[in-house]
Amino acid sequence: MEFRAFLTSLGTSFVIFVVLMFLFTWLSRKPANYVVYYPNRILKGLDPFEGSKRTRNPFAWIREALSSTEADVIRISVLGILVLSGLVLLPVLLPVAATDHSLHLTVNETSQGTFNDLDKLSMGHVGANSPRLWAFVTATYLASIVAYCLLWKAYNHVSDLRAAALESPEVKAEQFAIVVRDIPRPPEGQTRKEQVDSYFKAIYPETFYRSMVVTNNKKVNKIYEELEGYKKKLARAEAIFAESKKNGNPEGTRPTNRIGFLGLIGKKVDSIEYYNEKINELIPKLEAEQKVTLREKQQPSALVFFTSRVTAASASQSLHAQMVNTWTVLDAPEPRQLIWTNLPKKYYEREIRQYFVYIIVFLTIFFYMIPIGFISAFTTLENLKKLLPFTKPIVKQKVVSTVLEAYLPQLALIIFLALLPKFLLFLSKTEGIPSESHVTRAASGKYFYFTVLNVFIGVTVGSSLFGTFKQIEKDPNSIVPLLATSLPKSATFFLTFVALKFFVGYGLELSQIVPLIIYHLKKKYLCKTEAEVKEAWAPGDLGYATRFPNDMLIVTLVFCYSVIAPIIIPFGVVYFGLGWLVLRNQVLKVYVPSFESYGRMWPHIFIRIMSALLLYQVTMLGFLGVKKFPYTVLLIPLPIISIIFCVVCDKKFYRSFQSTALEVACKELKEVPNMESVFRSFIPPSLSAEKSDDDQFEDALSQVSRTGSTL
Amino acid sequence: MEFRAFLTSLGTSFVIFVVLMFLFTWLSRKPANYVVYYPNRILKGLDPFEGSKRTRNPFAWIREALSSTEADVIRISVLGILVLSGLVLLPVLLPVAATDHSLHLTVNETSQGTFNDLDKLSMGHVGANSPRLWAFVTATYLASIVAYCLLWKAYNHVSDLRAAALESPEVKAEQFAIVVRDIPRPPEGQTRKEQVDSYFKAIYPETFYRSMVVTNNKKVNKIYEELEGYKKKLARAEAIFAESKKNGNPEGTRPTNRIGFLGLIGKKVDSIEYYNEKINELIPKLEAEQKVTLREKQQPSALVFFTSRVTAASASQSLHAQMVNTWTVLDAPEPRQLIWTNLPKKYYEREIRQYFVYIIVFLTIFFYMIPIGFISAFTTLENLKKLLPFTKPIVKQKVVSTVLEAYLPQLALIIFLALLPKFLLFLSKTEGIPSESHVTRAASGKYFYFTVLNVFIGVTVGSSLFGTFKQIEKDPNSIVPLLATSLPKSATFFLTFVALKFFVGYGLELSQIVPLIIYHLKKKYLCKTEAEVKEAWAPGDLGYATRFPNDMLIVTLVFCYSVIAPIIIPFGVVYFGLGWLVLRNQVLKVYVPSFESYGRMWPHIFIRIMSALLLYQVTMLGFLGVKKFPYTVLLIPLPIISIIFCVVCDKKFYRSFQSTALEVACKELKEVPNMESVFRSFIPPSLSAEKSDDDQFEDALSQVSRTGSTL
Repeated sequence: MEFRAFLTSLGTSFVIFVVLMFLFTWLSRKPANYVVYYPNRILKGLDPFEGSKRTRNPFAWIREALSSTEADVIRISVLGILVLSGLVLLPVLLPVAATDHSLHLTVNETSQGTFNDLDKLSMGHVGANSPRLWAFVTATYLASIVAYCLLWKAYNHVSDLRAAALESPEVKAEQFAIVVRDIPRPPEGQTRKEQVDSYFKAIYPETFYRSMVVTNNKKVNKIYEELEGYKKKLARAEAIFAESKKNGNPEGTRPTNRIGFLGLIGKKVDSIEYYNEKINELIPKLEAEQKVTLREKQQPSALVFFTSRVTAASASQSLHAQMVNTWTVLDAPEPRQLIWTNLPKKYYEREIRQYFVYIIVFLTIFFYMIPIGFISAFTTLENLKKLLPFTKPIVKQKVVSTVLEAYLPQLALIIFLALLPKFLLFLSKTEGIPSESHVTRAASGKYFYFTVLNVFIGVTVGSSLFGTFKQIEKDPNSIVPLLATSLPKSATFFLTFVALKFFVGYGLELSQIVPLIIYHLKKKYLCKTEAEVKEAWAPGDLGYATRFPNDMLIVTLVFCYSVIAPIIIPFGVVYFGLGWLVLRNQVLKVYVPSFESYGRMWPHIFIRIMSALLLYQVTMLGFLGVKKFPYTVLLIPLPIISIIFCVVCDKKFYRSFQSTALEVACKELKEVPNMESVFRSFIPPSLSAEKSDDDQFEDALSQVSRTGSTL
Repeated sequence: MEFRAFLTSLGTSFVIFVVLMFLFTWLSRKPANYVVYYPNRILKGLDPFEGSKRTRNPFAWIREALSSTEADVIRISVLGILVLSGLVLLPVLLPVAATDHSLHLTVNETSQGTFNDLDKLSMGHVGANSPRLWAFVTATYLASIVAYCLLWKAYNHVSDLRAAALESPEVKAEQFAIVVRDIPRPPEGQTRKEQVDSYFKAIYPETFYRSMVVTNNKKVNKIYEELEGYKKKLARAEAIFAESKKNGNPEGTRPTNRIGFLGLIGKKVDSIEYYNEKINELIPKLEAEQKVTLREKQQPSALVFFTSRVTAASASQSLHAQMVNTWTVLDAPEPRQLIWTNLPKKYYEREIRQYFVYIIVFLTIFFYMIPIGFISAFTTLENLKKLLPFTKPIVKQKVVSTVLEAYLPQLALIIFLALLPKFLLFLSKTEGIPSESHVTRAASGKYFYFTVLNVFIGVTVGSSLFGTFKQIEKDPNSIVPLLATSLPKSATFFLTFVALKFFVGYGLELSQIVPLIIYHLKKKYLCKTEAEVKEAWAPGDLGYATRFPNDMLIVTLVFCYSVIAPIIIPFGVVYFGLGWLVLRNQVLKVYVPSFESYGRMWPHIFIRIMSALLLYQVTMLGFLGVKKFPYTVLLIPLPIISIIFCVVCDKKFYRSFQSTALEVACKELKEVPNMESVFRSFIPPSLSAEKSDDDQFEDALSQVSRTGSTL
């Protein structure tokens, strides 16, 4: 029964995958869909179809390697671990487990029929204290050693890539700047700008270039957005007008709109005139507000620019003030990553926010556990029939019941997980983190704990606790053997889960069905101007915040089951192999990364892979212990080795991922950096001059930012 | 009985103190003893007796404040905490405890006579769930708040002092240098010197001055010491010869010695000739060895000098290499503090040594606990009589028994503790720490854990466990109330301990009896030359490694008993008050600090005072809980507040104690630093040129150290 459900699930997933692949092949060849399937290439000005040829020339290969570096390295190394472990574990462990008949009798006595064909291949099928368990102990060691070697290689590789990216001779604005926060109150008679300039000029007399005081841009941003909104609307109205000229009367129909609530009520006006009027009204307002902002809304935070990469890198690592919580510095992220509103948040406020967010995350993780436990326990078919008797007639039908049994729990889980990332990103931003990539890292960390705790541990423990609650009530000591038997049982669930993830998930990813439909709907009914069409197909980011934790969940699952039920390894291999291929394609053709973090994600990934490994080793210890295998003690050194390995890697590499090593920063540049453009790249769009010939505006900006050079 | 023992101990201690004071007053006025009582002043070229007048002029006061800063601030703030707490706690808690008669009856039933006059003043005397316990809850809060305020003030003060010392316009060699360790193998065709120079020149093209590669000086040091030894012996022989001329025949007797084992066997030779010959033999040998050392015994470590304080401070805080475990840097300690042999130890070797040492320390702390527990349990008089019946006739005598009872346990403990510091210093040095002051800090940390765990917890728990072992055997749950009753009982022991510490300890300290006797013996029988006499009275260091932990032990004791038995507070006040006076005197007149750590000890002291406070708060929680006082829950926030306070202080101050803040380092200097002398001050004596006009030698040195300036 269970085995059939598993096969059905697998089959259905595969059918969906094949259908999606077919759709992809068919749809991606239609020129109208190029913008959805090759937006990255189009934005780069490349011909979408030449891509396949270009990949072969060496230049494209490097570009590839650099643009998808992190995701690639992770997938490749996990893939390596799984393939190498699989090569050893599968041919040995499967026969060892399958040919053991010692447990069959005892199992049939206690719980009839729970062991199915699939479970025969797992360790649950091997009898207690059987010499066959030696194979599993050895396998645990082998898998761990493979993991150590490949992770070490991967860490080295990512470290090299990071160094190569940081020492590149291109001038990158963020390498010449630092972010300064927690600036104390300026002394009497000094503006904040003067205070910052004199402070850093004293410390770096030769390499200090200029500073940019952070301002409160709330109001100016609002006006700017309003202005941009009217500009878009004007362009749209003009497009409609132009179209109406073509499609009917040569004079055209001038579009109109109502100026009341949501354009539904109020006076009817000529749109083009009205928007032009509004724009002309807002431009001087924006300029006035820009001046006020730059002059009066300065915040206790600043960006400081240096003429040398080494000084900037060194400054971002040094303590500047005797009071540690003032004049705190950090290396500037890319301009597009800066979260301007988080910069002026004070030191202790950030600390308090952080702990507050941790508490909320903790509560979220903890309270989500209950519903997930319930879901996984309820959605077995037997429970459904028992608890909701009115579903019996539907569920009794063979097809419905099989599909339901196969998919219900997994679907519930996947939908459940889709709700969370936005919330976690919001929480991480609330902590006061000043850069988008750091927020993403923080959110992905939270998401990882969530998935591992809730999905892996929640489902495993939840299902076993629920199904056998009464047995535990009778004999509380039976919980340990129950857990040990429930681990192999949950294997089926997770196999289906992984299969669903890669067949349906990657199928949807590659075929881009959802964005395609949305794009075509928008294009047909909403978009009037070129800009609007472009916005409709604009590719998003890879979505690191959820992609990495999901991958890590799969790593954890596959690790933990790799010896208990080695059949999971090929599934893991397919997940990461297919994932690698699909994402390589997507990164090259579809997604445009919204920021570059120079491999800073890797140490987090590493720690998570290591904790998955540790969890796996501890699980094995407990599992073999339950099997009453006396040589289980031989596994005790393994978690200790893991921790030592982790510490060694951390000591050897981690700090170079936190800050830029000076030997890297001191490499020569291609050209003398144009400091003016470095400086300008950090000015937020709402504050930068609209027309560069506007002298008055230039003055207002330089009043704030130029004094540094005349001091 | 017990109370009489306590009074006897107190009285005896006091008598010893008075005798020592009398000796001090008498002996320190004898001009022959000036060198023992005023060595610091004599070395500074001051008249010993003008000291008392000079202290009043402002210059001397500043000098005082700076020279004894750390020890002072700690004593003053602990004194402040104790005096302020004492002013509140003593007048309230003593009467509250003393006038409660509720417990008398129950106690007399269970264990007769254990409650004596002293214990009446303690919290043990207050009945269970008595409303009087409110006073103790409030007192705990009061004492904690006083501690927070004064510690905050002290931290601020020490931070200011550190900044003032670091930003002083005097040129200090160590502020222009950094220590570089873990230098990788130099590339083919490059010497280590060239490697280091080119590496740092690339990163700091403007401010790099020179580098000094660390060498293996084992052999050259040996030759140097041999040479210095012969020089001393020659001076001694010449002095004997000169003396013999005066005291008898005008030609004098030329001293002779034997050249065999220990000067006892072998050929008899003329000493002056022999030593001269040896010296003439060794000088070229030393010079040759110096050259070989500088050229061929270079180690993977170096000192790098910069022409700017800011660059040195910033460099010591920055990551230099992409591989974090290579090119590790730290700020240079004072030249005299550098532990040259620890510099070339490799990164992971240091890590392994560290953990290894931690394990040894852990074992030491753990296994010392057993003997100390035994000692404190055995050395009550009853136990002595019971276990060693043959001592009965001696012990029966009134005087002997009283003295024995009063002193035995305390003396055993103090002797015991005196054995440890050297061992801990050795262990800390083995860790691979590169500076003496850091070694001292590390050793004092270990000593603190040792004293608190063994003396405080060991004695308290040990005595109660031993005395009532059988009772626990009958009813294991009785251990909690037993502990609660044993805490006040141990109060007497600790009162005596503190009193002994300050009366006898400070008496010995001030009177310098032991050094005085040693000095006079040496002068009479051993010293022949001026240099030897000077060596005999040369003052030592303050001995931070044991002094601070001992003070911290007293802080822990006084804190923990301050509410339980507030009578301990005046003892604590006397300990720190007297200690402050005595040490102020000793620092000004006797000791010569062997290094300056710029207040780096303070954060460690702070953490230890805080952990004493935390231990105290937790003890109070447990103690009031045992008294079945329902409002004990009101104390739960207190440990949490302590931890928050600790974290806040840590965030606000700690990093500025680890490294030099750049705003401090950028202060202007009095003069342009003479980089040559800065560089020379770090050359170990065994490698520096004996005669500055020796050109050949200059060449050998510059071959290694000068190339930097010609590169």
